[in-house]
Amino acid sequence: MCPCQNGASEQQSAEKSEMVQVPLNGSTSAHSVASTAAASNGVNGHANGTANGTAPRPQRPINPYAPRASDFLSNVSNFKIIESTLREGEQFANAFFDTKTKIAIAKALDAFGVEYIELTSPAASEQSRKDCEAICKLGLKAKILTHIRCHMDDARIAVETGVDGVDVVIGTSSFLREFSHGKDMAYITKTAIEVINYVKSKGIEVRFSSEDSFRSDLVDLLSIYQTVDRIGVNRVGIADTVGCANPRQVYDLVRTLRGVVSCDIEVHLHNDTGMAIANAYCALEAGATHIDTSVLGIGERVGITPLGGLVACLYAANPEYVKSKYNLPMLREIENLVAEAVEVNVPFMNPITGYCAFTHKAGIHAKAILNNPSTYEILKPEDFGLTRYVSIGHRLTGWNAVKSRVEQLGLKLTDEEIKDVTAKIKELADSGELAVGQKEALDRLLRKHREGTLTRSSSPSPTRA
Amino acid sequence: MCPCQNGASEQQSAEKSEMVQVPLNGSTSAHSVASTAAASNGVNGHANGTANGTAPRPQRPINPYAPRASDFLSNVSNFKIIESTLREGEQFANAFFDTKTKIAIAKALDAFGVEYIELTSPAASEQSRKDCEAICKLGLKAKILTHIRCHMDDARIAVETGVDGVDVVIGTSSFLREFSHGKDMAYITKTAIEVINYVKSKGIEVRFSSEDSFRSDLVDLLSIYQTVDRIGVNRVGIADTVGCANPRQVYDLVRTLRGVVSCDIEVHLHNDTGMAIANAYCALEAGATHIDTSVLGIGERVGITPLGGLVACLYAANPEYVKSKYNLPMLREIENLVAEAVEVNVPFMNPITGYCAFTHKAGIHAKAILNNPSTYEILKPEDFGLTRYVSIGHRLTGWNAVKSRVEQLGLKLTDEEIKDVTAKIKELADSGELAVGQKEALDRLLRKHREGTLTRSSSPSPTRA
Repeated sequence: MCPCQNGASEQQSAEKSEMVQVPLNGSTSAHSVASTAAASNGVNGHANGTANGTAPRPQRPINPYAPRASDFLSNVSNFKIIESTLREGEQFANAFFDTKTKIAIAKALDAFGVEYIELTSPAASEQSRKDCEAICKLGLKAKILTHIRCHMDDARIAVETGVDGVDVVIGTSSFLREFSHGKDMAYITKTAIEVINYVKSKGIEVRFSSEDSFRSDLVDLLSIYQTVDRIGVNRVGIADTVGCANPRQVYDLVRTLRGVVSCDIEVHLHNDTGMAIANAYCALEAGATHIDTSVLGIGERVGITPLGGLVACLYAANPEYVKSKYNLPMLREIENLVAEAVEVNVPFMNPITGYCAFTHKAGIHAKAILNNPSTYEILKPEDFGLTRYVSIGHRLTGWNAVKSRVEQLGLKLTDEEIKDVTAKIKELADSGELAVGQKEALDRLLRKHREGTLTRSSSPSPTRA
Repeated sequence: MCPCQNGASEQQSAEKSEMVQVPLNGSTSAHSVASTAAASNGVNGHANGTANGTAPRPQRPINPYAPRASDFLSNVSNFKIIESTLREGEQFANAFFDTKTKIAIAKALDAFGVEYIELTSPAASEQSRKDCEAICKLGLKAKILTHIRCHMDDARIAVETGVDGVDVVIGTSSFLREFSHGKDMAYITKTAIEVINYVKSKGIEVRFSSEDSFRSDLVDLLSIYQTVDRIGVNRVGIADTVGCANPRQVYDLVRTLRGVVSCDIEVHLHNDTGMAIANAYCALEAGATHIDTSVLGIGERVGITPLGGLVACLYAANPEYVKSKYNLPMLREIENLVAEAVEVNVPFMNPITGYCAFTHKAGIHAKAILNNPSTYEILKPEDFGLTRYVSIGHRLTGWNAVKSRVEQLGLKLTDEEIKDVTAKIKELADSGELAVGQKEALDRLLRKHREGTLTRSSSPSPTRA
């Protein structure tokens, strides 16, 4: 549960004067040993002090709800990412990728380490077809897929592009059968068999996915998945096309399907209610093998499971496994590349790369973070090439955080004096004199204090952290 | 599962020329009856065509994974929101609220209809105390809470402010016990009893919460919750302070706790791995009664369950219940108010209010949306005072979407001509001539076509939607 632990003994000079930059390369504590042990077997939260057999009870409490070895279905530490920024992402309203941008994104994703890159159907437009061929010729390590409707015309175009696999999709819900393609299940099954056999005959991977799976009839769904599994499809896909599913529904459907087919299971989850990351996590717990993502989640409407968010929750579950698969410090670069291409800002509350993701503010938090970052962090910022900060120039600050900053600046103050400074900071913050971006305010305050020009606070401001 | 259904027969003039604005007040289809029936009993996904008893099988397929009446624990349609923008939100690195801003936010949240508003501890600073008193005097419908450490000094200050209730918190994980306050469970229990009895003696609500609950020892947790329940605490709180929990862990812990205490259960969930909305949903499924939120999720690091995201997933589960409780069209206004106060942008992929949340792009989607918005939408934009768009000026467009736009413009084109126009749009998009923001490009193209100056496309571009 808590894989990210490091000491906090080494002090460095902070770049932001109102922030305390917390050291990243501190001494390795005893906890790190436990966390490595937990990570190495893919089970988190079970590291405790009983390894030596002498402790009367675990020193590190066990979380009874953490994943365990008995969760035999779980693929939380055994999955592949199908990165769909160049397919689902192209369906984002603001995405107009030219060839150069597509190639830059494909190369970046490949360098990051995603296992698959999915591209827009070559049947969508002439340039789409050319771009698909161009990306296939890049010689990337990632397998290249393209995504087509379940139709022989599209399949014939797709297999000529040089892709490693074809992702076939057709709507199976009554909504889509009535208002989109107008076909019944018998027709869908017949066409699916024809398309799958054709793609397989070309010696490349083929996936069959329903669309709007969570509003499809379960018996229809299981029936067609079983049929295509028997003729040798590589993967079946479940798609929450409208973003209506919740985590326990996803778990239940994937778990049911896991008992029906022997092939791989892919999930494609839209984010309309903000649950696409959690739904992907639960799909892996239930035995799914492949997760569709896009950078920053871009796609139709509010998009799908974001690459960064998925990495965050899977890293939290098993940091060593995720670090071994992906070049994590590249995440921010890839997000910036795509954000620029589609003219959006990286959301301020993005997991990992949101600009305050590793900033700690309240006094009670700051004190503990300075003692041990694991108290309030499950992600290690240094694993993502990022830095931790403790903010102190505000009314919620505590004297432990101020003390840390005082020590970084090489000032010699007694605890009593530091508590006075803290009270003064709170006063200034209350009066509006300390505001965001005024980096120098705190250092000026500390200098004044040292020079004896700071008058003692007469108000009864509490100074405890 | 699919509460949002409306017809799409009425055509209106679109404001964006490259977008098809889809009518919001279309004729009510047969599906709406089913969806209302499903909503009215708080169970979704079970509306089907068998009500008249004559259909040989359900016309509307049942989702076997939808919530059911037998999920007796679930509070998905019976919950209260504790809105903590003015407490947790003030811990966001960029939040520096002055009194006027705090009052504006409190009034807006009250008008939206949240049941509780939680404020920063009056012990944090002198101004925090004054602001707490000022907000208590506003006479809002929402109950006002303040959030304090489990300490008599803080409790004495809190009860004098005029609040309706006090939220008490203390860290119970080994991390926080070792690196934050340094107290053992015996001390924590003794202090909790003292503080709770004191607050109760003042005739106001009191909640006791652990901090970092998912890394606390389960037996310790249940023991202290049982103790405070027996002395009459109003609520106990579970806090995923570090954002490490996943949905099934949250479900399991809340479900276990539900069997141990008889009081209400509140959950406070951080969003470090992007699962805070889903975790809140699962907490309600397991019997939690109160969910902590903040506007846009602002708080420590990447914050907590966002108000808008929570509303989105609960609306998707039971739209009638959520509409009856909250003034949904105010959501965007509140988000804009807070975004401005903390100087951030509303994330582009925000549920409901993200600027493309109701924009449809791919041809296959656009065709179905124009036939029936429910095919690709589970949220009705009009319930939030928003508008649906279908984007057509790009290479993924389909001829059904173009046809809809042609009809809106009053042009008389045959299907054959519209397919030619569609092919031409794809060509122009491929060549980069259609880019985002160039509103006039499509109308110019359509005019040219009508005037006969558009040459037939010679390329074999597929034009199917």
